[in-house]
Amino acid sequence: MRIHHECVACAINQCQKIVEMSLQGEKERKKAMLFSLKRAAELFSEESIPAVVGGLLFLGLYKFIGNDDPFKEYKRVSNEVARSLLPEFEGADLRTALKLAIAGNVVDFSTGYTPERLEKDIRGVLSQELLIDHSENLFSLLEKGGKLLYLTDNCGEIYFDLLFIKTLLREFPGVEVFVEAKEGPIINDATVEDLLEAGFDEVGTVVSTGSRLPGTPLEYSSPEFRKLFRSVDVVIAKGQANFETLSGLGDGRVFFLLKAKCPAIAREIGVPIGSLLCLNLSLR
Amino acid sequence: MRIHHECVACAINQCQKIVEMSLQGEKERKKAMLFSLKRAAELFSEESIPAVVGGLLFLGLYKFIGNDDPFKEYKRVSNEVARSLLPEFEGADLRTALKLAIAGNVVDFSTGYTPERLEKDIRGVLSQELLIDHSENLFSLLEKGGKLLYLTDNCGEIYFDLLFIKTLLREFPGVEVFVEAKEGPIINDATVEDLLEAGFDEVGTVVSTGSRLPGTPLEYSSPEFRKLFRSVDVVIAKGQANFETLSGLGDGRVFFLLKAKCPAIAREIGVPIGSLLCLNLSLR
Repeated sequence: MRIHHECVACAINQCQKIVEMSLQGEKERKKAMLFSLKRAAELFSEESIPAVVGGLLFLGLYKFIGNDDPFKEYKRVSNEVARSLLPEFEGADLRTALKLAIAGNVVDFSTGYTPERLEKDIRGVLSQELLIDHSENLFSLLEKGGKLLYLTDNCGEIYFDLLFIKTLLREFPGVEVFVEAKEGPIINDATVEDLLEAGFDEVGTVVSTGSRLPGTPLEYSSPEFRKLFRSVDVVIAKGQANFETLSGLGDGRVFFLLKAKCPAIAREIGVPIGSLLCLNLSLR
Repeated sequence: MRIHHECVACAINQCQKIVEMSLQGEKERKKAMLFSLKRAAELFSEESIPAVVGGLLFLGLYKFIGNDDPFKEYKRVSNEVARSLLPEFEGADLRTALKLAIAGNVVDFSTGYTPERLEKDIRGVLSQELLIDHSENLFSLLEKGGKLLYLTDNCGEIYFDLLFIKTLLREFPGVEVFVEAKEGPIINDATVEDLLEAGFDEVGTVVSTGSRLPGTPLEYSSPEFRKLFRSVDVVIAKGQANFETLSGLGDGRVFFLLKAKCPAIAREIGVPIGSLLCLNLSLR
């Protein structure tokens, strides 16, 4: 997926958030925003993939401000809150577990919600229908066994991914699972370290993309990861950045699990903003 | 006033609004946002005055998208709605008329409000105290007569400026009034044409800055306007852009009448966001 017109302002607004999280002095903040503007102008073109240029922009900004992980505390709290909610949903059936994995992408685990409020929001997502639902095709494929590559997105959310993968393995014990995360910190994306801390190594093989960019841009991934990607039978790709970086492949093995949160993604897929999707582009 | 860190994203967000108002096709919108990003990167530096670089950016964008006045309809409706509300406030005393002039800068005349709702909002502003209030000093100066230069800001608002000027002239009949507006359209700022249509020529001399930039950046103004500016005894400067472009002069003749709407202006003046001000920087 190439950038849409909203991606420009969205990237700059995200830079401002990062700058405000990381720097206190107005003079330093101003310098960092001017850096962001000039770097964005260099990076963005009509053919850009939003997650790639956004990621390169943020990594440059991290370096400029001397903070390699501005979202560290945000991610820690997200993981903690999500982990504490899991027992509420233990024993979910396959369909509920799939929707929980999407719900995990929707709610913000770190905004000082009470656990009660958060649980209510998650149940709200569970009560919504998927607007595009190719999950039966996904499950039919998994029935045959083979290798599943699961591409994670954010911290917090990963605990619901773990529940979903456990449920998948209960239903389809013949499946061998590989779970991907980022090589290092980028915004609130899960890293390999986050996955290991959450215990993903008990359900499958934890792998790194070999890159810190959001999503799964194969041209920036390690040769090992690319080899693994080519070898698997089914891919579950969570969240917007994975859609942005993989939608152009035309790869029928990929099922995108996401909420279309922003106008660019919604327009690209041709659905209303807010739609919940389990989408295989080859099945449309 | 130089830019603060928020000015970068704010300018880009305003470009997006202009682009969405003017262009329908996603491809054209994307091109226009990429143009805005690159032009902003060229224009913005640490020493930039927000209204000046913002104005240059928007004028460049107007040219790029081939629309010389994207806010035309917005301004027409603002003027119409404000004009229709005026009779409600006829005969206001000096203090109320001054606060109405600030209220005119605060409310948005064009967002499809009912007149009742808008009147309620204006009365809400009237009930607020000015956080910094140098109006007694302003009135003492005007008591002596002399030349007053009144720098306008937005359409809609100008009808409350007209009421304020009429009230000033009733109280201080010895004052000679000059009212400034922009040479041509820029965002929703009033132009000389708007002032003439509203009947400002009945209360004083309508003058152009000789520039389309927001505020009153003297280095971009016509020699005639600069000469007039130097010659007057008192200046009333409405709104944020006039503050941005004139606060650096250290000119004790200037009284700024504004609401500190954004974090940058509020931080610059050292007041909470939302403060109503009648401010002479030499009197602080």
